[in-house]
Amino acid sequence: MNLRIPGPTPCPEPVLQAMTRQMVDHRGPEFKEILLRVTDRLKHFFQTQNDLLILTAAGTGGLEAAIVNFLSPGDRVLAVSIGVFGDRFAKIAETYGADVRRLRFPDGTAADPEQVAAALAEDPNIVAVTVTHNETSTGVTNDIAAIARVVKGAGKLLLVDAVSSLSAIDLPVDALELDVVVSGSQKGWMVPPGLSFISVSPFAWEANARARMPRFYLDLLGAKKSLDRGQTPWTPAVSVFYALDAALELMLAEGLPAIVERHRRVAERTRQGVKALGLKLLADERYASNTVTAVLAPDGVEVRPLRAALRERGVVVAGGQGALEGKIFRIGHLGYVSEADIDQTLAALREVLPQVGFRAPAATA
Amino acid sequence: MNLRIPGPTPCPEPVLQAMTRQMVDHRGPEFKEILLRVTDRLKHFFQTQNDLLILTAAGTGGLEAAIVNFLSPGDRVLAVSIGVFGDRFAKIAETYGADVRRLRFPDGTAADPEQVAAALAEDPNIVAVTVTHNETSTGVTNDIAAIARVVKGAGKLLLVDAVSSLSAIDLPVDALELDVVVSGSQKGWMVPPGLSFISVSPFAWEANARARMPRFYLDLLGAKKSLDRGQTPWTPAVSVFYALDAALELMLAEGLPAIVERHRRVAERTRQGVKALGLKLLADERYASNTVTAVLAPDGVEVRPLRAALRERGVVVAGGQGALEGKIFRIGHLGYVSEADIDQTLAALREVLPQVGFRAPAATA
Repeated sequence: MNLRIPGPTPCPEPVLQAMTRQMVDHRGPEFKEILLRVTDRLKHFFQTQNDLLILTAAGTGGLEAAIVNFLSPGDRVLAVSIGVFGDRFAKIAETYGADVRRLRFPDGTAADPEQVAAALAEDPNIVAVTVTHNETSTGVTNDIAAIARVVKGAGKLLLVDAVSSLSAIDLPVDALELDVVVSGSQKGWMVPPGLSFISVSPFAWEANARARMPRFYLDLLGAKKSLDRGQTPWTPAVSVFYALDAALELMLAEGLPAIVERHRRVAERTRQGVKALGLKLLADERYASNTVTAVLAPDGVEVRPLRAALRERGVVVAGGQGALEGKIFRIGHLGYVSEADIDQTLAALREVLPQVGFRAPAATA
Repeated sequence: MNLRIPGPTPCPEPVLQAMTRQMVDHRGPEFKEILLRVTDRLKHFFQTQNDLLILTAAGTGGLEAAIVNFLSPGDRVLAVSIGVFGDRFAKIAETYGADVRRLRFPDGTAADPEQVAAALAEDPNIVAVTVTHNETSTGVTNDIAAIARVVKGAGKLLLVDAVSSLSAIDLPVDALELDVVVSGSQKGWMVPPGLSFISVSPFAWEANARARMPRFYLDLLGAKKSLDRGQTPWTPAVSVFYALDAALELMLAEGLPAIVERHRRVAERTRQGVKALGLKLLADERYASNTVTAVLAPDGVEVRPLRAALRERGVVVAGGQGALEGKIFRIGHLGYVSEADIDQTLAALREVLPQVGFRAPAATA
């Protein structure tokens, strides 16, 4: 199968094989060596000197950690959202009692840094801003550099969901002064799901010292203290660590600039190919994501049979989420992906579209 | 290595090989089939018709789910503890604002059901009881049937940590009316860490409807709604599911009664062998665990060099936790374990003990 969803993404064979390694004592020397090595290498890809902690949890667990470790009930939070995952980040903060002000931009568009600045200027009581770097539900990448300038310029805590961007799209965490940044193993990292990565700036640790939201399993200070001893506080997903170790080895060999460039190239090929078929993109192309492309379902074509027909041709794409269900389908192109995967996807699309009621516009017929 | 710690436990080769399977869409038909199959089979081993939910988290995450989904801040909870993990369960409840009354029994002893009854009779405001079935830190198994009679007889919610017992020690969840029962993949299940299993009774769901502790990643009602569609709310640890699927196949072939009997036999061999070496057990033998044996460090023997010497002989045992650090070492014998593993462990012990200062009592010399 050509798994073209925005995560879990396919794993290279050495990554899968790494998981055949037998269990070890998670408080012994073998695991310590792996934990310290992958932590160091994750920092390299996060482009950060901040603390980097690894949780045994999905990306959503990482997002929850980004909230509960740094905020208190009643804290006013500006939640910048451009889709389902931005909304989820806001919902988590609300669940734990934050006073959330939403700044929601329409699906397919990016957040406007000027509106973020205006919202912050209007309400000096805001202490933190949540934002999604790359919105998986719409295929849009925010201009995080511009947003960070505004938020850090105002002295606020900046919490960033980079689950589906980090390692695939350039995100220099320290250069942009991002306080808390979350990613997930099953996205650009070419690793099975089960681990979430989170970087924490000194400014964020100061907030942590004051933060009163309850936390136990996702407690990051405990994770940091354990890491100082080469351990995790709770039993880690050992086999996913083996996979991560193998994947980071491959990623270092390719190099971050080459990985970022490959994602740019593959994404561009996806967008051009989709448009050449007569289909339209959901995302404003200025902000189109290099890890996932959302394609509008053309008139007369239903997403469900389209996806089913593609699956029969060996290509698995994702549907829409939330309000976009039935309106779009999404092609993932992150992690272990090449031009050939995209060409196969486009060829399958070309074949099945007429079968599910698509009539190409005259210009491309 | 002969990995003789109480988790992660060694995995059979077919379980490790299962993880070489490529990723699939976690919202597609392949994963749905696996999720429904392993859920059904887990229910078989839990001996329950209750809902059974699988979280991508360590056992501690499962314990947190057992607290936050069923209680509200201010709820009075009786925390029955016989060691580190009972204390941890209590700590989680306190972290989320429960009014916790501790009933702590000395390390190495089991909880006295009569004292549990007395504590409940004394304080009618108690709404829930937390208890550890098998205390990994001391190698003691509580008489959960007697405790359950007391707690359910009083009409209280019973939350059970069965992380290191379930599937290895008989625990008929429905027959004992256990409301919430938590286990972890890396223990008796012969699966790598990363998944936690939790059963929920109808009485517990009633409590859930009233419970106001905050929860998002570990929300069980959301997990139940997703399961009804053959999905998990967040991206699951897909490769650990593959491993679980393979392990349950092996476990069904062996059969629960045979698995329980094997653990009884192997544990008995461990205890007798350790005593024959002139060593003493921490646990009251009437309640000694069939999954882990805690051995007292003899006079003049330090645990650290003893463990190091065993490791050089290819046997990895665990040290003590909390107040028992340096005072005991622990031999895990759960999951994928046979008499041969124990014999090798005992032989290694016999060899290294004199090297680390042990002088056998005259009777066994």
